[in-house]
Amino acid sequence: MRATRVVEGLAASTPFIGPERLMRERGMRELVRLGANESAFGPSPRAVAAMTAELERLAWYGDPDSYDLREALAGRVTCQLEQVLVASGIDELMGLCVRAFLEIGGVAVATRGTYPTFAYHVTGYGGRLETAAYTSEGSPDLDALAATARRERASIVYLANPDNPSGTFLDAQRVVRFYEALPPDALLLLDEAYADFADPAQLAPPCFDDRLVRVRTFSKAYGLAGARIGYALTTRTNAERLERVRLQYGVNRNAQIGALAALQDEAHLAWVLRETAAARAEYEALARELGTTTIPSCTNFVCIDMGSAAFATEVMAALLDRGVWIRKPGATPLDRYIRVSAGTADMRRTFAQAFRAVTAERRSIATP
Amino acid sequence: MRATRVVEGLAASTPFIGPERLMRERGMRELVRLGANESAFGPSPRAVAAMTAELERLAWYGDPDSYDLREALAGRVTCQLEQVLVASGIDELMGLCVRAFLEIGGVAVATRGTYPTFAYHVTGYGGRLETAAYTSEGSPDLDALAATARRERASIVYLANPDNPSGTFLDAQRVVRFYEALPPDALLLLDEAYADFADPAQLAPPCFDDRLVRVRTFSKAYGLAGARIGYALTTRTNAERLERVRLQYGVNRNAQIGALAALQDEAHLAWVLRETAAARAEYEALARELGTTTIPSCTNFVCIDMGSAAFATEVMAALLDRGVWIRKPGATPLDRYIRVSAGTADMRRTFAQAFRAVTAERRSIATP
Repeated sequence: MRATRVVEGLAASTPFIGPERLMRERGMRELVRLGANESAFGPSPRAVAAMTAELERLAWYGDPDSYDLREALAGRVTCQLEQVLVASGIDELMGLCVRAFLEIGGVAVATRGTYPTFAYHVTGYGGRLETAAYTSEGSPDLDALAATARRERASIVYLANPDNPSGTFLDAQRVVRFYEALPPDALLLLDEAYADFADPAQLAPPCFDDRLVRVRTFSKAYGLAGARIGYALTTRTNAERLERVRLQYGVNRNAQIGALAALQDEAHLAWVLRETAAARAEYEALARELGTTTIPSCTNFVCIDMGSAAFATEVMAALLDRGVWIRKPGATPLDRYIRVSAGTADMRRTFAQAFRAVTAERRSIATP
Repeated sequence: MRATRVVEGLAASTPFIGPERLMRERGMRELVRLGANESAFGPSPRAVAAMTAELERLAWYGDPDSYDLREALAGRVTCQLEQVLVASGIDELMGLCVRAFLEIGGVAVATRGTYPTFAYHVTGYGGRLETAAYTSEGSPDLDALAATARRERASIVYLANPDNPSGTFLDAQRVVRFYEALPPDALLLLDEAYADFADPAQLAPPCFDDRLVRVRTFSKAYGLAGARIGYALTTRTNAERLERVRLQYGVNRNAQIGALAALQDEAHLAWVLRETAAARAEYEALARELGTTTIPSCTNFVCIDMGSAAFATEVMAALLDRGVWIRKPGATPLDRYIRVSAGTADMRRTFAQAFRAVTAERRSIATP
């Protein structure tokens, strides 16, 4: 009994080790979760109330069309309902895009070291990933990405904006210019997981073209990561293509209900954005205090420069020993940073104490 | 911009129209849901309580390893934790199996007219589905299935046991004999969505072989269809293969919590099984009263013979007009039946009234 050639050829790998596994392996009972850019500020109380009221009806499947949520999203974005596709998070939507637009042996392009689940899907569906490095400032290098896409005749180009793990943001004008520089038969998969944290005036306006799929989520600013729900914005043609292979009943019924209520609670979102900005400012001040710098972030996380990849790895491990879970970028030039998610004031205090202790115990941070 | 050859070649089709769409299209506000074999008896109150307590923490991703639930399932089934794979329902697990074991152009075999999502995955991943008809008694025809699998050199053979939509059950001995008659390089994908309704003593004992993947769900007897959570039982080798392409963070955090609590509430399960048996008995009596028969069912639904496919379709539509939603098998020889899910006493009363009226208004049921 053999698996398919593609699956047989894959290395056993997971894009991420979950914090629960780290805790199990170390016998830890608690962990300050600052590693997955979850919202420490939680879901909207209105979303929690709406979901609580409906838990007894969880024996019913959710609406396979996610109609009510798509209607609300279409109204918010100003597009047709048929241009909105709801699935169980951006991870699933990226998989659908790869499946629908990348042939076995086809090439996809992304920034080296960006959100790894895209690469996971590309190799998982038998494609090949080509990458372009971040700029020295830590932004995706749009010129290098477009050149790589043209050279490799890429079928899909992945861009996270705001970017993960750098936190940098490219304004509408730069994204549009990049889009126009791509090969005419390449799909731009624009991962806007963190778009809710960006300045709406700077965000590329949703444009609808068969060569563009935008994906968004309720996991970050809306605080519903555990619910698994996100959406794609694209043309009717593309939505209908993705629909042909989408898991019809893949979305949790309560996630649909929670997402709809969360979308309507603008006060909670505004509060989360304020708290997130406060957390970023605090991390930046902490970095200055310790004699280092951060990458300006438009997201709910901040990259702090540790001077070298080895020291960044050491600090991450030492923080874990002290019960603080963060992550770090894996590829140069960002691998000398640690990435810390916005926490509540309490979580920030715990992180700051541990971070000060960990760096003081060792040598000071020497930025190159 | 073109989609992949496989996706471009697919017809736009959905395995199921959801009841919500039927209601929207007809402007209905209520519907008695007896069409999707959901549990009208609801989830365990202990599961609801456990999920309610954790909704505020839905901002955290669930454990990507579903460790606690897999540990509990492994203990229940008596296997190793590494042989259990949790995903967002059997639908996702079937997709993973097709992706891992069926090459583009490869052949899968199933009973004609069985649970359509398997066929959806086979064609969606570029495979070809070959079918064998049900026996005249409404059981999967194991001899014909095995012969088709051998003739077509099938990579995957799908068998639902207990079967959907017939409700029939094949005991352990027959399943094992069937398994042994399959080609030596074919995977048996055993869909045990309704296994909780069958006599455990008659159920094939979980055996672990690379040629066998069993899939089970919390959607039926456990009343958690809306939560989207199910599991596969197989060898460590196969689990590791499926793990290479599984959506790591695909499972809702609250679904993990609810499923674990539901598994521990044996009293609720026992009550659901008793209520389901009462519902089946009532449907059988109703069929006798109206001069027709049912297929003996080991599930939470019953097929009632309407004499002809045309009349079954007419009755289904007429029931919908009266606010009662059921489904019917689509392929001969089962297409002359309607399929009714076990409802609560209230739902059964509504169905019985509507069913009596609908058949009385028309002609009597003439079974061939």
